[in-house]
Amino acid sequence: MSAEFTSLVTSLAQRARAASLVLATVPTAAKNAALARLADLIDASHAALLAANASDLASPEAAALSAASRDRLTLTTARLNHLAVSVREVIALPDPVGDLLEETTRPNGLHIRKVRVPIGVIGIIYEARPNVTIDCAILCLKSGNASILRGGKECFHTNTALAALITAALTTAGLPADAVQLIPTTDRAALNALLKLDSLIHCIIPRGGESLIRFVAENSTIPVIKHFQGVCFVYVDAAADLAMAEAITVNAKASRPSACNAAEQLLVHVGVAEKFLPTVARALIAKNVQLRCDPASLAILAASDLSTLVAPATASDYTTEFLDTIIAVRVVDSLDTAIATINRDSSNHSDAIVTADEPAARRFLASVDSATVYWNASTRFTDGFEFGYGAEIGISTDRLHARGPMGLRELCTYKFLIEGTGQVRP
Amino acid sequence: MSAEFTSLVTSLAQRARAASLVLATVPTAAKNAALARLADLIDASHAALLAANASDLASPEAAALSAASRDRLTLTTARLNHLAVSVREVIALPDPVGDLLEETTRPNGLHIRKVRVPIGVIGIIYEARPNVTIDCAILCLKSGNASILRGGKECFHTNTALAALITAALTTAGLPADAVQLIPTTDRAALNALLKLDSLIHCIIPRGGESLIRFVAENSTIPVIKHFQGVCFVYVDAAADLAMAEAITVNAKASRPSACNAAEQLLVHVGVAEKFLPTVARALIAKNVQLRCDPASLAILAASDLSTLVAPATASDYTTEFLDTIIAVRVVDSLDTAIATINRDSSNHSDAIVTADEPAARRFLASVDSATVYWNASTRFTDGFEFGYGAEIGISTDRLHARGPMGLRELCTYKFLIEGTGQVRP
Repeated sequence: MSAEFTSLVTSLAQRARAASLVLATVPTAAKNAALARLADLIDASHAALLAANASDLASPEAAALSAASRDRLTLTTARLNHLAVSVREVIALPDPVGDLLEETTRPNGLHIRKVRVPIGVIGIIYEARPNVTIDCAILCLKSGNASILRGGKECFHTNTALAALITAALTTAGLPADAVQLIPTTDRAALNALLKLDSLIHCIIPRGGESLIRFVAENSTIPVIKHFQGVCFVYVDAAADLAMAEAITVNAKASRPSACNAAEQLLVHVGVAEKFLPTVARALIAKNVQLRCDPASLAILAASDLSTLVAPATASDYTTEFLDTIIAVRVVDSLDTAIATINRDSSNHSDAIVTADEPAARRFLASVDSATVYWNASTRFTDGFEFGYGAEIGISTDRLHARGPMGLRELCTYKFLIEGTGQVRP
Repeated sequence: MSAEFTSLVTSLAQRARAASLVLATVPTAAKNAALARLADLIDASHAALLAANASDLASPEAAALSAASRDRLTLTTARLNHLAVSVREVIALPDPVGDLLEETTRPNGLHIRKVRVPIGVIGIIYEARPNVTIDCAILCLKSGNASILRGGKECFHTNTALAALITAALTTAGLPADAVQLIPTTDRAALNALLKLDSLIHCIIPRGGESLIRFVAENSTIPVIKHFQGVCFVYVDAAADLAMAEAITVNAKASRPSACNAAEQLLVHVGVAEKFLPTVARALIAKNVQLRCDPASLAILAASDLSTLVAPATASDYTTEFLDTIIAVRVVDSLDTAIATINRDSSNHSDAIVTADEPAARRFLASVDSATVYWNASTRFTDGFEFGYGAEIGISTDRLHARGPMGLRELCTYKFLIEGTGQVRP
């Protein structure tokens, strides 16, 4: 049984590898033609896609999903329209392949160019979200990579229907059909076998909850780029503009609590805590946010009319990604304590300082060891679109290869092209 | 016992992490002062280092080494002088930390800077080579990374003596002594425990033979940058200048057969095979190189006076990294066959075409999916020094993060520093 899955995914990966070698050098126009065809096919296939999605939604697997997960699985006409729009937006993005990154001529006359090229074959492991199927397929295709998609079992019929459209689009554009492949089973044995194919697959990107990502990282012999949790901090400094601090805190926490760039942790300098905490607490509570407070912040809020609306924090609250309308609150005695606390407890994703003190801000920016560090702005801006990438395949919480939002360029590696006139090494 | 090693390496890694946060923002001058002190200490400690090395060489473990490995383990006065020189050379290299990589101002006024920063904590796993201890420690230090070193057991006393000098140099320069740490045991249980510390260590670089690298890649939950084998090709095209082709082939194969950038495979276009093969075979045999030939090349050479000096190849010869004075030889019918053969059988390290036909060369450069692709030059130039990096920690055979020679910049990641005026996300 296991051998059968190994054989299945090996054959699939071999075909992906062959397709990747073709895709690496095809002109941008051919990739864009396939994308344009795909958008048209999505527009023309609403009935079939909604029917496939309905059969997924009616399955026992889907019945076991949370309301939020079920919502993410659900396709509607509006969401299909949005999917076609996102495909057309990727057509408009510049092709990253072939960009000249560096160029030098050595004293011996060797001319060295470092150019951007696709990574090769990318495996995407994700949950029951049909939009991820399209998003990842189109970004890999535009960046010249072959992709192998493995979505959640609750979404299998929808993914199969979407993959059929992708295959048709590739074929129409004269590109290899194997350039985007959906694993035709959701058996975990197939995933396990896939994660060992390090001679054929060059990169695995898991997208989903912590347990999925951990499973992939622990079982893969292929390099993994993780898109992990965001335990993001807002630090309100002694010299903060408190109205700005309140607006940033409320936005970072409450504008979309389920996002990885939402703040989960609030640190307040002791010098402004008495003044700031009751105000920000009131604003957060108005957005239905629960505050879990350390003894110092609790003591300040206990003296206000908010005392019954806030709760003491437990130790684990200080490192938790709530993904919910909850925020942990601590009072800190200095900028240094704030920096040390963040470097110890954050997930190094996105952390912000609010202050009018430029030297303090500069020290925070330099010393906080996170992918994205903000001065006087909300952590919610950590996002490929907000960065101007036009699209993102995710937000890397790793430090190697890509850190923070990953767009088309981050789906590429480079190679060196070296031209000589017969040089040999002495 | 295993728990004891876990505790040992966890404590060591925690101290490395704390040191890395300090090191990330220290001025270049402090790092250079530590390097200068280290070079002086090496100069002043020949007797102690040679004694430690002698005790390693006298151990039963060293007795089991091959002559080549024993030679790499051996320190001499000349080699110690060279080691101090290499430390002083790294002082002269530019500090990569803080380089501004990209800068943009978004329509909402957010100012985004992407700056180069150290990776953090890097684990180096290597064999019985004392020069690797110094090379890796100084490159990690100069690039602002804390390093954890785990060398081969045959080199333990030498490494301990070198690590003591590094600690002294760090302390003298006012840098954290924990910035460079040698694991104080060569028990494999400690290595196994280290490879699971993915919350404290950000990157593992294994340097050594295939079995070491495979062990690390299979057992690490920390991202690994592999420095794997080089099965490098020289392809002599129909339009090659045959004198140039001969010089490049002989240099690529015979100038240093044990190097990963040495050629192991020769492909010759059928149109020039009859003319080229006897000449290049004679030149290679003069350098004591054995030729392992496919039927077509064997038939050509069998007709010459070299018939007794060449042998038929086996299938495995075509994908073997010989690291020796052996080369496999095949005749190919076209450029396309050469490209497909290389993309199938090479290790994607360094591959060369020799031709006077520019369109053929351009197609080869674009289509060969290797880290370094040469036109009319020897594969032996794949090297950090030859690329002008000034030093290298190795040659990555991975595609993520770094590909090809890795210098100081490739020991860095980046982070985004974002400055606003109170922006919140709509």
